Amino acid sequence: MTTIHLADWLNARIDRAREEPVYRQLLEAMQQAILTGQLASGAKLPSSRMLAADISVARNTVLHVYEQLTAEGYVTSTTGSGTYVADTAPNDRAAVRKPQEPADETPRKPCLISKRGARLIAHAGVAPKQWGAFMPGVPDVAEFPSRTWSRLQSRLWKRASPDLLTYAPGGGYRPLRRALSDYLRVARSVKCTPDQIIITTGIHQSIDLAVRLLTDSGDRAWVEEPCYWGVRSVLQASGLTLVPVPVDEEGLNPSARDMAAPPRIALVTPSHQYPLGMVMSLARRRALLEFARQHGVWIIEDDYDSEFRYRSRPLSSLQGLDDAGQVIYVGSLGKMMFPGLRMGYMVVPENLVDTFRTGVAELYREGQLMQQAVMTEFILDGHLTSHVRRMRGLYDERRQLLIDAIGAHFGETLAVRGDEAGLHFVLELPGNASDRAITDDALASGVVTRPLTHYYMNQEDARRGLMLGYACVPNAEIAPAFAKLAGVIERALSAVEAGS
Amino acid sequence: MTTIHLADWLNARIDRAREEPVYRQLLEAMQQAILTGQLASGAKLPSSRMLAADISVARNTVLHVYEQLTAEGYVTSTTGSGTYVADTAPNDRAAVRKPQEPADETPRKPCLISKRGARLIAHAGVAPKQWGAFMPGVPDVAEFPSRTWSRLQSRLWKRASPDLLTYAPGGGYRPLRRALSDYLRVARSVKCTPDQIIITTGIHQSIDLAVRLLTDSGDRAWVEEPCYWGVRSVLQASGLTLVPVPVDEEGLNPSARDMAAPPRIALVTPSHQYPLGMVMSLARRRALLEFARQHGVWIIEDDYDSEFRYRSRPLSSLQGLDDAGQVIYVGSLGKMMFPGLRMGYMVVPENLVDTFRTGVAELYREGQLMQQAVMTEFILDGHLTSHVRRMRGLYDERRQLLIDAIGAHFGETLAVRGDEAGLHFVLELPGNASDRAITDDALASGVVTRPLTHYYMNQEDARRGLMLGYACVPNAEIAPAFAKLAGVIERALSAVEAGS
Repeated sequence: MTTIHLADWLNARIDRAREEPVYRQLLEAMQQAILTGQLASGAKLPSSRMLAADISVARNTVLHVYEQLTAEGYVTSTTGSGTYVADTAPNDRAAVRKPQEPADETPRKPCLISKRGARLIAHAGVAPKQWGAFMPGVPDVAEFPSRTWSRLQSRLWKRASPDLLTYAPGGGYRPLRRALSDYLRVARSVKCTPDQIIITTGIHQSIDLAVRLLTDSGDRAWVEEPCYWGVRSVLQASGLTLVPVPVDEEGLNPSARDMAAPPRIALVTPSHQYPLGMVMSLARRRALLEFARQHGVWIIEDDYDSEFRYRSRPLSSLQGLDDAGQVIYVGSLGKMMFPGLRMGYMVVPENLVDTFRTGVAELYREGQLMQQAVMTEFILDGHLTSHVRRMRGLYDERRQLLIDAIGAHFGETLAVRGDEAGLHFVLELPGNASDRAITDDALASGVVTRPLTHYYMNQEDARRGLMLGYACVPNAEIAPAFAKLAGVIERALSAVEAGS
Repeated sequence: MTTIHLADWLNARIDRAREEPVYRQLLEAMQQAILTGQLASGAKLPSSRMLAADISVARNTVLHVYEQLTAEGYVTSTTGSGTYVADTAPNDRAAVRKPQEPADETPRKPCLISKRGARLIAHAGVAPKQWGAFMPGVPDVAEFPSRTWSRLQSRLWKRASPDLLTYAPGGGYRPLRRALSDYLRVARSVKCTPDQIIITTGIHQSIDLAVRLLTDSGDRAWVEEPCYWGVRSVLQASGLTLVPVPVDEEGLNPSARDMAAPPRIALVTPSHQYPLGMVMSLARRRALLEFARQHGVWIIEDDYDSEFRYRSRPLSSLQGLDDAGQVIYVGSLGKMMFPGLRMGYMVVPENLVDTFRTGVAELYREGQLMQQAVMTEFILDGHLTSHVRRMRGLYDERRQLLIDAIGAHFGETLAVRGDEAGLHFVLELPGNASDRAITDDALASGVVTRPLTHYYMNQEDARRGLMLGYACVPNAEIAPAFAKLAGVIERALSAVEAGS
């Protein structure tokens, strides 16, 4: 391309009516000319003065474009001798290839997602809708004392120190760790010092960290059957082989065959089995601890929502019974506060404190110390306790309203289970009903629920049921929303009966 | 234990002078009595009325303790017949074992951290100190316009909607994605729609997500030699085999042997090689893209700090040259804002948008939409642009002050490299100097630096140097802090000379 041709070519591409600055348009046009080979490598560019005159832009603009092209490696400049198109082609064929035009003549290998990625996506449990009747596991964030939180936040930001704005070097904000250790000691009989607390972004990150530090790819992990889908995804993403261990009324109930092949790690929800809701009996707790002690098994105690227990105080933790330092206790502030907060904690055995503090900083490069400082004030000023107390009363009402609504529609025919604690319970369905089909139909009617079978790894043994979250549903909406759901259930059950 | 003995035993353990409520002390004492076998399984507890009288506490307190013991499975109650200690022992031996006393007679397998965990900790790069002269990679958070941020934050919290307080269903806050796609299109020639933007907590999470979705354990990953330690840790935690590929003045420079074994994924820092600072040449960019296209290689473009380029505008991205949809572009807001913010973004190819949105929600259960909304306002009101512009000027001054201080102490004997952009540069040392020893001695003198060799996988080929971050050091502290460091360097170099 000669200088004249270059000027024509550029003039055809620069449109002063466009919002984009001329500088940018000229830069992109020059890049295109070089990338497509229309300005061949080695070609000398016109002087900035000459080009500026030819295309009627300020000389400074051309100078800036030339500088940027130099910085980005499109051209090379030698003082006194001029500016030349750099040799940029990876090979001859590619050099003449126009952008957007696939170079069919060169072999191309498709770029694919991985096996573990495909499995993760195929089994993803995350719901497209995260709010409304009867989304399980979500607290009523509309009741969160936003003004109190905002006030504390403003106060702390007024004296934001650099230390709180940079990375958290490991473990999190010390006063928050102290406040949490006090809370957990009293409320949950967790045995810990502030040092043993590691602040995380929630239960997913806590489990991910424990798995990456304590297990290797290919290790066996016991998970409760049924269990929370998120735990399965996190474990599988780290290459663990999941062994589903059934639960009965006393919680985790490993068979002799399970016990014969001890896992590297076992995940349990002793205070409130997720999703079924039973409490692990003391006998099972002690048996599990003894088994773990004998076989070097790590136990992760997931205590995700036990602040909301309606007929007794929160239960003592499994961690408090552990003398061997094998229990990692994980909890979340999201359900007491609001899920978007993304704040949780783990309690690790004393001899692992350094390992976990280094691990969390190395893998996730944590920060959010300002938010942790606000959280600390919120706890120390007593707001957390009073908010949780108020929510416990409110959720208890909603729980009862939903149970009443179920009774009004179905009498004794459909049982409710796991309603002693938490933010949801399970509405049991007959074994021949499809809880997945009902969930899909319900969503079409504007009601969110999750099928119980979705929480099982082995579908053949799965109980049928619907997970009903009541915590985030305003009292007045519970009966009408359940009426819609009841219609869907009735139609499904009569279709099953007609078909059988 | 008879009733009288139980009362004595409890009286000995309840201390009304302690801060802990009597309820809690009584509960713990009863749990201990049961756990240690002093109250044997099957034993009948005294009636609440009798025990209350014997130990002089309110009967209601005893009733609450019995209820809690029932809920936690320590005792069972039958109406009319009384309360009995439950059968809780996992086996006879454990039942009589006292807490804290190791049961030496049962075999015990030690509980260990895993191979991958041990390797992560052994190679951890995270520094104990994250602030001060000359910590690399940290912006000056003291200059962050906290009041503006706090004002926007307060305004948004006044109208906090439930949607912004719950989980982020995938990808992040839509208006932020739109603002970022506009910014990246103009400033970095990134080709993307708002849909292609995925908000993450930063570069660690972006890379972790890409690796878990796009690679399998055992796959090969090219990393630049040298490179950021955090990238290595994240890749290794997911089981990848790292292949260090040397960089030269034009960036990544794979050998014929490297090219003969294409990796599954390649991580590059084309705009500002980390840590050495060169720009990947256009020829290398095109060669890498062509190689990736032919062999189905994913490329992760880590563009961690190119907003701070001192002699030209930010460079165009590699992603903008990619016609095949194989580049994942990752960036961070932490260095423009403040690292504790934990906010970053990735740009994924159009056909992977759903995969990444589902993946991020499934693996990390993201939230923080309120913070993302504040960030959006901060961008749309122009604060980000003006803050970055101001910081670029300030960092440029500090860069020059540090270069001047180096010149004053060492003249031309020690070279500076990679100072065209970013928040740090490298001070080169002679090949026989120990940059690690100098770093340790400097820390003892109160000066933070990082040894260049730490960023290499192969130590034998590693260049010696010190990573010097100037961005977070107030102008007036630069010369005095460098004087201390210069003393350490001079002593080390003269020791090397004396020894050679």
